[in-house]
Amino acid sequence: MAATNTNIPHFQEELDQLKARLLEMGGLAEDRVRSAVKALVDRDQALVEQVLDGDGPINQLHMEIDSRCVRLLALHQPMAVDLRAVLSAVKINTDLERVGDLAINIAEAAIRYLSHPPVKELIDIPRMADIAQGMLRDALDAFVRRDTLLAQQVLDADDALDALKTQVFRELLTYMLQDPHTIEPSLDLILISRHLERIGDHATNIAEDVIFLVSARDVRHHAH
Amino acid sequence: MAATNTNIPHFQEELDQLKARLLEMGGLAEDRVRSAVKALVDRDQALVEQVLDGDGPINQLHMEIDSRCVRLLALHQPMAVDLRAVLSAVKINTDLERVGDLAINIAEAAIRYLSHPPVKELIDIPRMADIAQGMLRDALDAFVRRDTLLAQQVLDADDALDALKTQVFRELLTYMLQDPHTIEPSLDLILISRHLERIGDHATNIAEDVIFLVSARDVRHHAH
Repeated sequence: MAATNTNIPHFQEELDQLKARLLEMGGLAEDRVRSAVKALVDRDQALVEQVLDGDGPINQLHMEIDSRCVRLLALHQPMAVDLRAVLSAVKINTDLERVGDLAINIAEAAIRYLSHPPVKELIDIPRMADIAQGMLRDALDAFVRRDTLLAQQVLDADDALDALKTQVFRELLTYMLQDPHTIEPSLDLILISRHLERIGDHATNIAEDVIFLVSARDVRHHAH
Repeated sequence: MAATNTNIPHFQEELDQLKARLLEMGGLAEDRVRSAVKALVDRDQALVEQVLDGDGPINQLHMEIDSRCVRLLALHQPMAVDLRAVLSAVKINTDLERVGDLAINIAEAAIRYLSHPPVKELIDIPRMADIAQGMLRDALDAFVRRDTLLAQQVLDADDALDALKTQVFRELLTYMLQDPHTIEPSLDLILISRHLERIGDHATNIAEDVIFLVSARDVRHHAH
């Protein structure tokens, strides 16, 4: 059923290009999250602005990858695991675009946070960012290499992120109760920790897709 | 290219079934959001528990719809607008599943909120819920009827939701600054307002997909 016309690039070749573009988009998304959190920690206003204005490339890639998926399906009409790989790419593309949006949400909260004196030294939030970025990288690597073991590690890492989120919340609540001046900036740190948690959720979505793709085993609604 | 074997149901028939299932899933998601917010407003512990335990049917539908999409693509290898319709269904399915998850997030925050005396009469949060639910319903109707005008209305409604979210935040901040006892429950109301905002975001995603589907015009990265 697959087209064999020599003018049409081979399916595997196009799929490899698609994966390369997804990795590129993942790299961009990760960079933007890293910059947003670095801007927060370093109190670097210029870097925040850069994050706020810098979603062009990722949005371009989002539309390009979507078109690639449609073209792949239309030209090659892949079956079985190849079909599922393209459908996973459609979903992963959406997840990565949302991660890019979350970098903006973090930057917006950072802007507000930086208009107040610092509440505390930021330790757990950069740790959350590291974990979330690592999860995202691993989830994409797992997709490209069809590595379910690595995908499972991503699912496991989510617990660490969750624990840190709870810790951040409790600690900031203590500050807020002790000193009303810390309420407003603390709220922004809490929101930032939630945005980082959601980045972990997107990595988890990707990892679940990988496990489904490789094993045709749907793990999505058993862990909950 | 479309299969004509009489054992294979017609593409349009299967696509109509798929749409019906998406509408059903949208109805379930909407119900769960409504129940979560009603439980919060009525301080109804039993209803909160019901929301927390009730994600089975929506998760079942999520997996079923995904399988239907794969089968539709594999059996019929649709082209052009039909291919885009199935890909939209894949994305909408993901959006609706997340809305179901957000109902749980709202219920979790409601549980915590109900362990404190009420901070205030809840007016804006139920209004936010009404708007978000309406957006979701309209977005799905727009998908089923390929109605770009209705999809555009969904995009426009997002501003009202955003304004309410900001208003909720400002009001609760005032309470928190005046009385530290309100800090903890206010935080949960703020989180709930963010969850409702995200439900609006999912409706917006669906509406953008509809406009793309019908007009092949990508509106996703111009409004931002």
